[in-house]
Amino acid sequence: CLAAMPLAHAQSNVTVYGKLDAGVRKAVGSSVKEVATSGDSRLGFRGVEDLGGGLKAFFGMEHRFFPDTGTQDGAQFWKGYSHVGLQGDFGRVGVGRQYTAAFSLVQNQIDPFGGDTVAQLRDGVMRVGGITKVRIDGSLRYDISFGGVSLAASVAEGDKNGGVERATSVAASWRSGSFFVAGGIEDPAGARDTMTSLGVGYTLAGHKLTAGYSSGKTNAGLKAKGWMLGLDLPIGAGIIKAAYGQAETNGRTVINKLGVGYHHSLSKRTMIYANAGHDSKAARAKTGYDLGILHNF
Amino acid sequence: CLAAMPLAHAQSNVTVYGKLDAGVRKAVGSSVKEVATSGDSRLGFRGVEDLGGGLKAFFGMEHRFFPDTGTQDGAQFWKGYSHVGLQGDFGRVGVGRQYTAAFSLVQNQIDPFGGDTVAQLRDGVMRVGGITKVRIDGSLRYDISFGGVSLAASVAEGDKNGGVERATSVAASWRSGSFFVAGGIEDPAGARDTMTSLGVGYTLAGHKLTAGYSSGKTNAGLKAKGWMLGLDLPIGAGIIKAAYGQAETNGRTVINKLGVGYHHSLSKRTMIYANAGHDSKAARAKTGYDLGILHNF
Amino acid sequence: CLAAMPLAHAQSNVTVYGKLDAGVRKAVGSSVKEVATSGDSRLGFRGVEDLGGGLKAFFGMEHRFFPDTGTQDGAQFWKGYSHVGLQGDFGRVGVGRQYTAAFSLVQNQIDPFGGDTVAQLRDGVMRVGGITKVRIDGSLRYDISFGGVSLAASVAEGDKNGGVERATSVAASWRSGSFFVAGGIEDPAGARDTMTSLGVGYTLAGHKLTAGYSSGKTNAGLKAKGWMLGLDLPIGAGIIKAAYGQAETNGRTVINKLGVGYHHSLSKRTMIYANAGHDSKAARAKTGYDLGILHNF
Repeated sequence: CLAAMPLAHAQSNVTVYGKLDAGVRKAVGSSVKEVATSGDSRLGFRGVEDLGGGLKAFFGMEHRFFPDTGTQDGAQFWKGYSHVGLQGDFGRVGVGRQYTAAFSLVQNQIDPFGGDTVAQLRDGVMRVGGITKVRIDGSLRYDISFGGVSLAASVAEGDKNGGVERATSVAASWRSGSFFVAGGIEDPAGARDTMTSLGVGYTLAGHKLTAGYSSGKTNAGLKAKGWMLGLDLPIGAGIIKAAYGQAETNGRTVINKLGVGYHHSLSKRTMIYANAGHDSKAARAKTGYDLGILHNF
Repeated sequence: CLAAMPLAHAQSNVTVYGKLDAGVRKAVGSSVKEVATSGDSRLGFRGVEDLGGGLKAFFGMEHRFFPDTGTQDGAQFWKGYSHVGLQGDFGRVGVGRQYTAAFSLVQNQIDPFGGDTVAQLRDGVMRVGGITKVRIDGSLRYDISFGGVSLAASVAEGDKNGGVERATSVAASWRSGSFFVAGGIEDPAGARDTMTSLGVGYTLAGHKLTAGYSSGKTNAGLKAKGWMLGLDLPIGAGIIKAAYGQAETNGRTVINKLGVGYHHSLSKRTMIYANAGHDSKAARAKTGYDLGILHNF
Repeated sequence: CLAAMPLAHAQSNVTVYGKLDAGVRKAVGSSVKEVATSGDSRLGFRGVEDLGGGLKAFFGMEHRFFPDTGTQDGAQFWKGYSHVGLQGDFGRVGVGRQYTAAFSLVQNQIDPFGGDTVAQLRDGVMRVGGITKVRIDGSLRYDISFGGVSLAASVAEGDKNGGVERATSVAASWRSGSFFVAGGIEDPAGARDTMTSLGVGYTLAGHKLTAGYSSGKTNAGLKAKGWMLGLDLPIGAGIIKAAYGQAETNGRTVINKLGVGYHHSLSKRTMIYANAGHDSKAARAKTGYDLGILHNF
């Protein structure tokens, strides 16, 4: 074991982690039955260095890919994020490609499916109208938490995010016992786009109820809004999940969707899942379903 | 060492492995002398989680690249494979981009060069006519072994594999003492393509004799067949390898090739090699050779 | 910890390492203020295997990327290098995509900024005229060191490096106490291009003075030469860096640049930096600056 020790030390600077999720799926709005990833398969590298005096350096980058074809997801190899920064009593400052403040504190906290699977409502409802981005390129982000309060603000270059002005996002959340409330305001990189997102949650012994609302304006000036309810219902080693929500653009309902699923844990890192989604506003093939396995490493 | 321990644990979920192979080469059929990889350089990430009760989750993905230029090999970053699944007493089920059943149980078991180097006969003979794929996208694969018997079946989406129907492959092998026999039948994603592959082997104290035969039909309706013999002859820390085989398409011999090589182990993980191949049916530059180093990590 | 041990062993074959550098920047010659990497963010995999008798196998490959957008830097995923080889008493022989001899022994040893940040003079002065490459594809490289002497030679295929003939580079350096002197001669892959680079250095208690000179001819037949001075001045946990140099092409001064910076170490692996560069020959926006954080892992 002596031989391994020096390298174990060398390796201690970086943690290799990831998720491999694959199964069979028929997406909502499509009649294609295929092998697909429902949970955004990824490979990441990250680390934290203690600099002393409460100061720490952190870094990380995360690759996303499609396990059915072995191809990378998107134009960027490090689609998930790539950032470096410092954290301490003053909070946490990161620079790079990063999640927006409102995405991580609000929009990604409401959907019981976390934006994954055919049952998810995050992208259609909490991020209604395609107004905001999950991540922004060329960004600075500040986070601080105290008591149950978390505050975050992100700002990014406009042109690297397909727009004409700095993309800004501010968000706050508050957890107190079983209650959770969060809100965020965003001004994406376009000249006219804006977004406000709100969410509340109540958790008791693993049972969880959530509600979310987002309202904004697209860069084309169209009003968009959405609302959703979410439910987590633990049953033995599994959890039943359900979500319902609607989204409208310019006064017209474009999404009216119910998502249900059962996620069965085989361990803390591995689960099998089955989900279904039905969107009565889908142009065709209104019902989708998936069945697969998800493994975190 | 205390600081390293938690991360050593964190790292225990994933094994980083790979192979770096490079040297000089003149390929059969080409007059270009170049630096090249003869053994498919790669970087992979894989792991197995024990779920208890004999059940395990497994995952893995493998990148292929050209070390002479630093570029990825092929359109997919994870060209080698990318899959996730479960294994237990019932066998092993994987989903993703995966090897076909007949490739891993039959076609890849006969060539002493394992499909690598200028001396290899696997791709031209055992996979004659370019009928089958090494790997198939969007696939499910089932494997089970008992006694010396291994059975495998893979099925995949047609359109993700450039075809019009599901790509299927079934294979079986049997090992008993020094003997090995294997066979596979495939119906690739095209409308008319089929393939049957057979192989036998005899191993004694590291010496190995193999014979293989493949016969099929291309999607264009042409008949294709090939046969080959292989030899492994250990000498000290090295091994002499030889293979001879022929392939014909529509009754015309298109490959008549002899491959020889010497692979010298510097350790269990590192070897240097020299190989030569001569194909009397090559249009020009019938003889190729390579000389290089291969390191597994 | 028993469960982790076997995998710690498995992992001991490869070291995962890298650098994440990001900050804000306005480049010399540009008026764009942006989030950018000033120090070539990277992720690498490397290892050394002891083969006994003083012989070792080594391998490595290094990815470069832009952390502000998460995209890979350049056409090659493994832009940094990708090689494999053997080392022993006879020296070190590598094959793959590798640094040229003169780059690593001479051109990269003079600039206090190591080619990073807006203050750097390496690429414009020590590699004047864009005559040489940092790395060459399809290359063999030989290195040997004895006493304070290092010798290196690299040769590569011409067509893989955009040229018509083999790219060759030879270099030598000598360190004796505080003194350092190095020189290299190159004949890149083009028909007419040549390059000679010289450098000297003097180090005392962390203080360092360097001087460098390069002279060559572009493939178009234009003469190009450059000279530079560099200074490292340690102050507490930081270091003040300065460099000044000029470059001319065909008798016309094209670069007349001063670079200054302060690099403050937060640990052996992490630093924050601020740099400025002023090139009086820049067509516009002659002054650039950057401010960021660099973390090695």
